Amino acid sequence: MYENLSKPTTYQKEIKLYSGTSNPALSRRIAEILHLELQGLKIEKFANGEIYARFEESVRGDEVFFIQSIAGENVNDLLMETLIVADAASRASAESFTAVIPHYGYARQDRKASSREPITARLVANLLEAAGVDRVITLDLHSGQIQGFFDIPVTHLTALYQFGDYFKQKNFDLDNTVVVSPDMGRAKVAKKLSDYLGCEVAIAHKSRPKHNAAEVMGIIGNIVGKTCIINDDMIDTGGTLVGSINKLKEMGAGDIYVSATHGIFSGQAIERLQNAPIVECVVTDAIPCSVANQPGSKIKQISVAEELAQCIYNVYTNHSVSASAGGNSEM
Amino acid sequence: MYENLSKPTTYQKEIKLYSGTSNPALSRRIAEILHLELQGLKIEKFANGEIYARFEESVRGDEVFFIQSIAGENVNDLLMETLIVADAASRASAESFTAVIPHYGYARQDRKASSREPITARLVANLLEAAGVDRVITLDLHSGQIQGFFDIPVTHLTALYQFGDYFKQKNFDLDNTVVVSPDMGRAKVAKKLSDYLGCEVAIAHKSRPKHNAAEVMGIIGNIVGKTCIINDDMIDTGGTLVGSINKLKEMGAGDIYVSATHGIFSGQAIERLQNAPIVECVVTDAIPCSVANQPGSKIKQISVAEELAQCIYNVYTNHSVSASAGGNSEM
Amino acid sequence: MYENLSKPTTYQKEIKLYSGTSNPALSRRIAEILHLELQGLKIEKFANGEIYARFEESVRGDEVFFIQSIAGENVNDLLMETLIVADAASRASAESFTAVIPHYGYARQDRKASSREPITARLVANLLEAAGVDRVITLDLHSGQIQGFFDIPVTHLTALYQFGDYFKQKNFDLDNTVVVSPDMGRAKVAKKLSDYLGCEVAIAHKSRPKHNAAEVMGIIGNIVGKTCIINDDMIDTGGTLVGSINKLKEMGAGDIYVSATHGIFSGQAIERLQNAPIVECVVTDAIPCSVANQPGSKIKQISVAEELAQCIYNVYTNHSVSASAGGNSEM
Amino acid sequence: MYENLSKPTTYQKEIKLYSGTSNPALSRRIAEILHLELQGLKIEKFANGEIYARFEESVRGDEVFFIQSIAGENVNDLLMETLIVADAASRASAESFTAVIPHYGYARQDRKASSREPITARLVANLLEAAGVDRVITLDLHSGQIQGFFDIPVTHLTALYQFGDYFKQKNFDLDNTVVVSPDMGRAKVAKKLSDYLGCEVAIAHKSRPKHNAAEVMGIIGNIVGKTCIINDDMIDTGGTLVGSINKLKEMGAGDIYVSATHGIFSGQAIERLQNAPIVECVVTDAIPCSVANQPGSKIKQISVAEELAQCIYNVYTNHSVSASAGGNSEM
Amino acid sequence: MYENLSKPTTYQKEIKLYSGTSNPALSRRIAEILHLELQGLKIEKFANGEIYARFEESVRGDEVFFIQSIAGENVNDLLMETLIVADAASRASAESFTAVIPHYGYARQDRKASSREPITARLVANLLEAAGVDRVITLDLHSGQIQGFFDIPVTHLTALYQFGDYFKQKNFDLDNTVVVSPDMGRAKVAKKLSDYLGCEVAIAHKSRPKHNAAEVMGIIGNIVGKTCIINDDMIDTGGTLVGSINKLKEMGAGDIYVSATHGIFSGQAIERLQNAPIVECVVTDAIPCSVANQPGSKIKQISVAEELAQCIYNVYTNHSVSASAGGNSEM
Amino acid sequence: MYENLSKPTTYQKEIKLYSGTSNPALSRRIAEILHLELQGLKIEKFANGEIYARFEESVRGDEVFFIQSIAGENVNDLLMETLIVADAASRASAESFTAVIPHYGYARQDRKASSREPITARLVANLLEAAGVDRVITLDLHSGQIQGFFDIPVTHLTALYQFGDYFKQKNFDLDNTVVVSPDMGRAKVAKKLSDYLGCEVAIAHKSRPKHNAAEVMGIIGNIVGKTCIINDDMIDTGGTLVGSINKLKEMGAGDIYVSATHGIFSGQAIERLQNAPIVECVVTDAIPCSVANQPGSKIKQISVAEELAQCIYNVYTNHSVSASAGGNSEM
Repeated sequence: MYENLSKPTTYQKEIKLYSGTSNPALSRRIAEILHLELQGLKIEKFANGEIYARFEESVRGDEVFFIQSIAGENVNDLLMETLIVADAASRASAESFTAVIPHYGYARQDRKASSREPITARLVANLLEAAGVDRVITLDLHSGQIQGFFDIPVTHLTALYQFGDYFKQKNFDLDNTVVVSPDMGRAKVAKKLSDYLGCEVAIAHKSRPKHNAAEVMGIIGNIVGKTCIINDDMIDTGGTLVGSINKLKEMGAGDIYVSATHGIFSGQAIERLQNAPIVECVVTDAIPCSVANQPGSKIKQISVAEELAQCIYNVYTNHSVSASAGGNSEM
Repeated sequence: MYENLSKPTTYQKEIKLYSGTSNPALSRRIAEILHLELQGLKIEKFANGEIYARFEESVRGDEVFFIQSIAGENVNDLLMETLIVADAASRASAESFTAVIPHYGYARQDRKASSREPITARLVANLLEAAGVDRVITLDLHSGQIQGFFDIPVTHLTALYQFGDYFKQKNFDLDNTVVVSPDMGRAKVAKKLSDYLGCEVAIAHKSRPKHNAAEVMGIIGNIVGKTCIINDDMIDTGGTLVGSINKLKEMGAGDIYVSATHGIFSGQAIERLQNAPIVECVVTDAIPCSVANQPGSKIKQISVAEELAQCIYNVYTNHSVSASAGGNSEM
Repeated sequence: MYENLSKPTTYQKEIKLYSGTSNPALSRRIAEILHLELQGLKIEKFANGEIYARFEESVRGDEVFFIQSIAGENVNDLLMETLIVADAASRASAESFTAVIPHYGYARQDRKASSREPITARLVANLLEAAGVDRVITLDLHSGQIQGFFDIPVTHLTALYQFGDYFKQKNFDLDNTVVVSPDMGRAKVAKKLSDYLGCEVAIAHKSRPKHNAAEVMGIIGNIVGKTCIINDDMIDTGGTLVGSINKLKEMGAGDIYVSATHGIFSGQAIERLQNAPIVECVVTDAIPCSVANQPGSKIKQISVAEELAQCIYNVYTNHSVSASAGGNSEM
Repeated sequence: MYENLSKPTTYQKEIKLYSGTSNPALSRRIAEILHLELQGLKIEKFANGEIYARFEESVRGDEVFFIQSIAGENVNDLLMETLIVADAASRASAESFTAVIPHYGYARQDRKASSREPITARLVANLLEAAGVDRVITLDLHSGQIQGFFDIPVTHLTALYQFGDYFKQKNFDLDNTVVVSPDMGRAKVAKKLSDYLGCEVAIAHKSRPKHNAAEVMGIIGNIVGKTCIINDDMIDTGGTLVGSINKLKEMGAGDIYVSATHGIFSGQAIERLQNAPIVECVVTDAIPCSVANQPGSKIKQISVAEELAQCIYNVYTNHSVSASAGGNSEM
Repeated sequence: MYENLSKPTTYQKEIKLYSGTSNPALSRRIAEILHLELQGLKIEKFANGEIYARFEESVRGDEVFFIQSIAGENVNDLLMETLIVADAASRASAESFTAVIPHYGYARQDRKASSREPITARLVANLLEAAGVDRVITLDLHSGQIQGFFDIPVTHLTALYQFGDYFKQKNFDLDNTVVVSPDMGRAKVAKKLSDYLGCEVAIAHKSRPKHNAAEVMGIIGNIVGKTCIINDDMIDTGGTLVGSINKLKEMGAGDIYVSATHGIFSGQAIERLQNAPIVECVVTDAIPCSVANQPGSKIKQISVAEELAQCIYNVYTNHSVSASAGGNSEM
Repeated sequence: MYENLSKPTTYQKEIKLYSGTSNPALSRRIAEILHLELQGLKIEKFANGEIYARFEESVRGDEVFFIQSIAGENVNDLLMETLIVADAASRASAESFTAVIPHYGYARQDRKASSREPITARLVANLLEAAGVDRVITLDLHSGQIQGFFDIPVTHLTALYQFGDYFKQKNFDLDNTVVVSPDMGRAKVAKKLSDYLGCEVAIAHKSRPKHNAAEVMGIIGNIVGKTCIINDDMIDTGGTLVGSINKLKEMGAGDIYVSATHGIFSGQAIERLQNAPIVECVVTDAIPCSVANQPGSKIKQISVAEELAQCIYNVYTNHSVSASAGGNSEM
């Protein structure tokens, strides 16, 4: 009835790469760079909204990397999908489960801004750990402190230098170029990008010129006639951003470029940006965007696939991650 | 600057009742029975799909009961909402957080039916515990063993006797009435209902009269000319159920009534049932259903609000739950 | 004083197989199939009832498989023995500890049937995890949901198809054979066995023909003149079972065969079965039984050693368990 | 259908006292001192060896004290009974569960005396915590460090001063009395008792007068012609103890009294002591002993019920435990 | 031997306030405002460097608040002292243990700035939770995200508005006043203070006017001739700060005031500030400072005792903390 | 931008040895014996007392051994240093982190000697586990039970036999030699050493010859004219020890040798011992001692480097530790 068994011997673990449903194009790019196939993973959503997942082949003893951006209108579905796949991997005796999360949803809820609020970014960390995730690879978190929400190792990459390289290729006149932080909280990152490019920095903020006057946008630093590069970690509805863009134009800004790692583009964001007085809005493929790089579209997309692939490579082969070009983010 | 403080003295905790977004009508019914107001809880869903929650008043030291059916196309949103609210309560120093979950989503994924599957019903239990839930009150779980997925206390209620009472009021001729289990796995509950009503039981099943023949529905027990009461824990798309109903009719069944605690009614379920040769389909308000109890609708809804209210009462006041009429389910 | 040390190099882990005191014969069969020796493990029970255990050789870095059926009058001793051995392995730096538990004691206490009861099957899962067990291999659990009581991987095997093959060899006239479920709760498994054999199914149950009448056994389905195969997960005292057998005979059943994975045989069970109007009672060697397969004994025993050995092989060598003939149970 | 509910109000928790099956006489004595009834708790052992427990009345919100000595041939049954009752209490929403364990089984396995041994006393602590025990009250642990095996609060009482008072009443000539430690490891406690009594101390040990000679008992200190009080924490089979008693007599000891908190009395212990050249063997009722205090029996039993009752009283009413006469043991 | 016991009744918990060794003056101020005595807590440091702690009276059932700033050269001693006291409270059955930590040591190590670094602020959170701390009250954390390092409730207060009120009393000409952020990362808080005061904001930063030039301090915003209020969360060695002060002076700044919640004042900090061209350096008493408010000293200290006392009051009496004037910080 | 990646393959883990700041000389000795280099680990203490650590090269996938004696005036710094390094290793994806702790600080606080004390030795165990330590190697713990404070594997070595060998080389007249236990609690270990040497044992203790008389040192056993070897686990301030030495001399002792694994030498210990009527005080290099083995110094130091190196070797290469000469301590 049973095959004739030999004396059991040990097995060499393998790397197994899987894609969630959120960003299959990015997953394919990563797989290609790594000379790996994406493995079979059945993920279904039933009519009642529940998600079902099953690994098609054994993962016993293997190191599983699961690539999933937790972003978009169905952000909770994508998070739950990640948790369910992690649970399946753990019950199937995978050696380890690494969640590769180019966009970490709920990152903005990273502290209590008022009483009786949740800290959802920590909750998400707890849920991932509770589901059996062993390691996280992620990109340009809203705040670097989110690494500390985990007890498991987190590798935090940044696309900042890719944006830097992108703008370097434009050969701007650096004396006439300024990186603009969209608010006080992003001033430090804007400074880092301006240092990388070798240009000035300016900071937009909400200001009141006199007491009791209405709040208006102010700007610290000089932007008149200059090429402005606005850098943010994410673009959501784009409302505040486009408001700032218009104000910059009013104040005499030259060409305006927008860059952000995470193009969430909720609601009217795409339209707003298309109609805004900007030359380009550059985002990464951490979140898929169907109109990016299309003729006539102001949305440009650069890929973080190489950076993620390199990191997966280094993690699996136990190289130091900071040895790669992208390095460990510090923002 | 500060109010003049007296020496601090202890505080008597209060019960605080909150409604999630899934079933506000049921929450209001429960609150009314308990002579309580539903307290203010802000729950928003942003354009980017993320959920935000905040308690409007202090819950410090209080016992929080949060009523949420985790059911419907947005089942993952509703689960995440529950987790986020629990996190907020815990960080706001609530004395305890009881999740009142009339429908527990993912209950059917309660074991590995094949290799490399998750056990999502256990995962959900882990997530609720990780988010700080202290106690669960729920209703007619797909299997009673799900109680054992929790380390925290779970009170498991049943609507079975309410269905029994509902059908008793119909004054059927009991010698001509039969409770029909829709499959082998539900035979035990069907038997319990038939005992409560004092009638016979029959069991539908998939059968092959000869080897290699196609699978067809068989029935064990006699249903010819009898009033049939089909009882299930939930109705999802209703496809299999309506197939069985038609087959029962073909086999000579009399009037057919369907009853199920959880009317999920995914996809074409409502239409299918409306067109099926049944007299009524009775469900509870564990899941909201807009067409129920409408003129011309075959969907009838009975309320579990009293049972849930009684249980909340007993839990808060430390009475035994089994002392209430509904009692602890055993199915 | 110390041997001259070389630069330390890594070590290849080994599989180490150990037997608990409950079922050494099964352990030996498994070891033989795997071409392994059972390793030395000292287990003593002192006069004061306390158990002591010690591994005779190093298990540092090794994968330990410990075979123990938790069954019999001293079920608590056997559970405690398992926990103690797991603790010793963990403190001795074993790489992993797999508890191979052909019979999982307390499996029937898998839900709260009334208020203020324990869920002992979950408690046992918690105890095993607390003692450092990393993986469980088990057989025909009372309910498949018990898998979900664990956070660690559980491989759940079934002997159902071995019983099927056993009865196939009898070459029964299938049109005159019926699998009989001993109660409503086992209907689903009886159906699965009847499908495998290609015969009919019937379900015994407690029934009241009229209100207020005494409870008597009823049967749904036709058994008159037919060879009946009763299938259950376990036989304990055998009282109810023999009552049902007698009733089946009264109702006109033909030859009766009983089959059950777990022959616990408490109290008078063996005598009762020997005297009952059955041809055979077939059980597995998941639990040892001294009278099985003896001349004149109606108790027949088939071995699950191959299935368990295959599973251990696959787990250690990281093959998929479902690839083996026995497969993953779903009942 | 439901009673008319009033607005729920809070409830005052109660103390609920329960007895395990190991030592009902001691439980009754404690209850009487506390003016409490022992509450109803059904504990059954099935024919298959499994234990079942159920609280007869609600424990929701109450503080449960469960009195159980984990000692005797069925020590594992008694431990498992404790774990099962704790699980039931936790699932029934008891406010807290205090295990009152006059004899803590497995206390001697409190460190690794050789490689690859378990530390079962720590395992037992882990099991109690895993089952939901919130607090432990215990007596004369084999080593005080076992308190540190728990993260939950442990109150460690001692009967040493009760033994001291018992012997004081004998009015021995203190210049002719010596407390004898049965081995080197108990020297510290023997010293404490001798200080309390105001007499000398001596220490028995295994010694070799010359190299390569056989090991014989030696004694440090003077016992010739003196009344000897041997004090130990427990008497198990009594073999070594009676050997030492005989040796003391040979060496010229006067009257010999033996005292030990825990009279386990395994195997031939009672006979051995009855026949040994001692006046009395005094133990406590931490473990029941049917022959104690019987006419002609050398076994005398003193009760620790008052000390345990006082401790329960103080714990429940939040008095300091060290305020009681018995105090916190330090041994 | 024992007092005559009455039937035990429940006990009303009390608030118990304790001071660690780091900041007894602040503890006394808090106690006075709350009309409470500081309770007896023995804390000793042995010659071997080990710390010993013991509560002098019972804390059983009480809510313990322990006030300890984790700051100063002996920061690790103070952290360890906190952990040891928490362990003692937990083992002594305190109802809860709240660590009131006006200065949270290691707060700056809140993310991995380079690979293979620890996240010590998270480690400290883990250690506090492991030692049994139930709640934390703290002040002006280096980043608000540190709240999310805890699973237990954290109340995060701010002294920002006290600094605001302090400077309002100076009646500066607001058109000639500017709040200066010492670096990009603090821009957001500086903006908040400037909004509260109704004046402008400026941001200092390290800048390179040309490529390859040396890094020099730049300033975004106008400070010439203006009263400058530098605001930071903490002053450590003061080296960079005094460098910036000198540079501001060079650039033409008017009067300079420095404010920081946490005056750590390591190394030469006090001297440096005393000699720097500033009018005042204002800190709080979160950390003790012997020279503050002395004649001739530029160091001024304002007290956070009222704010901490109010928070303790609200936490113990279950009032909402945000109802107090200081409110929940958001920085 | 990225190096051209090959398909990732697995990596062979390495052993990486690191030294903490407490005992670099011992670390170097261990490394040399193992033919390994101590790897680069930056450890800094800032002016504000906070410690910073960073691994200089990748530890991803490696087995890290960190050698640190937690002893000395800055014992809390050394403990915190260990926790911080462990946190860094864990976040840097080390395969395992073994803390080699020749002296385990706080070992004496291993039980509650009075109420409301901490059990700091358990707290330290909890902190090490919370920081991510996977295994502990340590030496001559104050009590062997401390092993049971850990859930992770602990290897407990002893220097007892090295002391034995050291004294054997002195070729004492064994009939005139006696091992003296400095108190009742150490009697068992003194006995073990005396058995190893083949000589007598004596036990010092505090005694009262008559009631109400002052406490004086007594001695059980004969020391007159004999060479005395006092053996203890540690020497702290040496006050009590030197008192006992003087008393032994008064009582007629011959040459006195002192031996202790851990020479903490707090306060005036070195002076006291230098002036005491002893021939030698022998300690190990578990704790560094600058005056040891210096001309004229009575402090002699023997090295435990070989024993620790052998243990590290065996742990890494998965040999049994008890196979080494030093063996597993049992004291």
